[in-house]
Amino acid sequence: MKSNLEILNICDQPHPDPASLYRFLIEGYEVPFGHITPDVAKRMPWGENWLIDHDARTAKLLGTSLDDRTQIMHEMLVSAREKHTFKLLAGWQNEPWPVYGPNKKLVLSIERAAAPLFGIVAYGVQLLAYEGSSASDDLKIWIARRAKTKRTFPGMLDSTVGGSMSTGETPFECLVRECEEEASFSEGLVRTCAVAAGTVNFVHVTDERYGGESGLPCPEIDFVYDMQLPEGVIPVPNDGEVEEMVLLSVEEVKSALAMGKFPPANGYVILDFFVRHGILTWENERDYVEIVSRLRRRLDFQTA
Amino acid sequence: MKSNLEILNICDQPHPDPASLYRFLIEGYEVPFGHITPDVAKRMPWGENWLIDHDARTAKLLGTSLDDRTQIMHEMLVSAREKHTFKLLAGWQNEPWPVYGPNKKLVLSIERAAAPLFGIVAYGVQLLAYEGSSASDDLKIWIARRAKTKRTFPGMLDSTVGGSMSTGETPFECLVRECEEEASFSEGLVRTCAVAAGTVNFVHVTDERYGGESGLPCPEIDFVYDMQLPEGVIPVPNDGEVEEMVLLSVEEVKSALAMGKFPPANGYVILDFFVRHGILTWENERDYVEIVSRLRRRLDFQTA
Repeated sequence: MKSNLEILNICDQPHPDPASLYRFLIEGYEVPFGHITPDVAKRMPWGENWLIDHDARTAKLLGTSLDDRTQIMHEMLVSAREKHTFKLLAGWQNEPWPVYGPNKKLVLSIERAAAPLFGIVAYGVQLLAYEGSSASDDLKIWIARRAKTKRTFPGMLDSTVGGSMSTGETPFECLVRECEEEASFSEGLVRTCAVAAGTVNFVHVTDERYGGESGLPCPEIDFVYDMQLPEGVIPVPNDGEVEEMVLLSVEEVKSALAMGKFPPANGYVILDFFVRHGILTWENERDYVEIVSRLRRRLDFQTA
Repeated sequence: MKSNLEILNICDQPHPDPASLYRFLIEGYEVPFGHITPDVAKRMPWGENWLIDHDARTAKLLGTSLDDRTQIMHEMLVSAREKHTFKLLAGWQNEPWPVYGPNKKLVLSIERAAAPLFGIVAYGVQLLAYEGSSASDDLKIWIARRAKTKRTFPGMLDSTVGGSMSTGETPFECLVRECEEEASFSEGLVRTCAVAAGTVNFVHVTDERYGGESGLPCPEIDFVYDMQLPEGVIPVPNDGEVEEMVLLSVEEVKSALAMGKFPPANGYVILDFFVRHGILTWENERDYVEIVSRLRRRLDFQTA
């Protein structure tokens, strides 16, 4: 049985050698947009549109428009993929991920599979649908069981609905899309009943399980939503990603969490729900203050 | 009209010279329990039970038990008070504040008025009572108006209930006491309806308005609670600290917040409520990601 702090630490990890990382910069901006390991910095086929400073440990993308920057990045990654420079790029998905600057300004779009090479913040949405109310003992949460055919964490437990934000989507639009795909929740239901409740923030570090390079920092911000279901409404899986939906009591969810039945990021989302709904408190959780703060930790990366 | 990020920045402030601060250490613990300015370190009448290292900028309290440490601190502060060494100590309140180590272990108790001299984390509770539900347009919040006779921020708006935790109280016990004193909420009501919802964390820096030394870091962690009031229950002031309670719509609270009608820490609590109840979202708040993370910022101090 794992403690809640152990569950948190499995998801939010310190980088083994933070001082070694190169800052990923973009012309016209002061703050870094990500971090690159020395190994990646050495092997990446940087071209004339990049300023690489191995002493200052910076890699700066030159390009003054969103389209320019996206094109420069794309061409370099296509070249790296053709040369098989990075194992990660074998997982190319043709899915553009957004890179945000100050004030939610979109500054770059990058192939999803390449995001860990640059330590770019990934954005996602997570929704927990529940019955009962947070002050009561009858609170139950709809938990998804991931399909046995999923590439990552097959058969494990999951939030009711979750997914990654693509370039051009707002969090709420992403939520509406994922709710339809994963739980057959209509757009009208989501607009009426889903309540934004903040974010969870963490940094994963890739290891051999990711099927690519190890030691890459993967910061992530997930927008979390709650949905108290109206009488008679239940989630119904609508694509092949979810095997079934089960309605679990808080005690059952706690127990599954402690036994490691949720993937790291999904356990994180459960902990956040427990904090916001009075299930974890200072009185019953030894590491309450640390857990509460860590769930929304500040990422040392430029974010929207 | 202030933006939400501006309201946040009024409460959570960077220290003007963080590198100058001495770490407040306690024998047997590695982590600092607070931070002391060079001026305070120079003038404090440290005795034989302290190890002061002006090069390493550390002040270490020697003492191996809670009682020992509390006694050593108390005697030094009484002496400083008698000599009028610090203006802040003129506000002596005979109220012991807790200093927590790892795993919620109480390691020291210190007079409330002296906490800023050591940059020790203050703990408090904050409750917002509301009617309606977070997904609906009819959500209304009970806002207190502070008495005109209050020493700090007289006549300004406030959470429904709030107060500081004394040594020996748990957050929930403190909440029960404050709910009775400030809103006439019975213990039974609080135990049934109040829902713990995390913390808000910030660091104030004292200025001339505090009536004592300026530039002292005052980190604070407030345990936040929501209470959806049952039909017919309303808060009624029960001591001289609250002038009246008013039931405001979300739009009215937003407007009062933007006009600076809440003291800094109370505005912070309102922002946290707005984040957790879907009132602030990525779509409608330019600085959403930063605000969400900052509200629960990690304090660079040892905490429970």
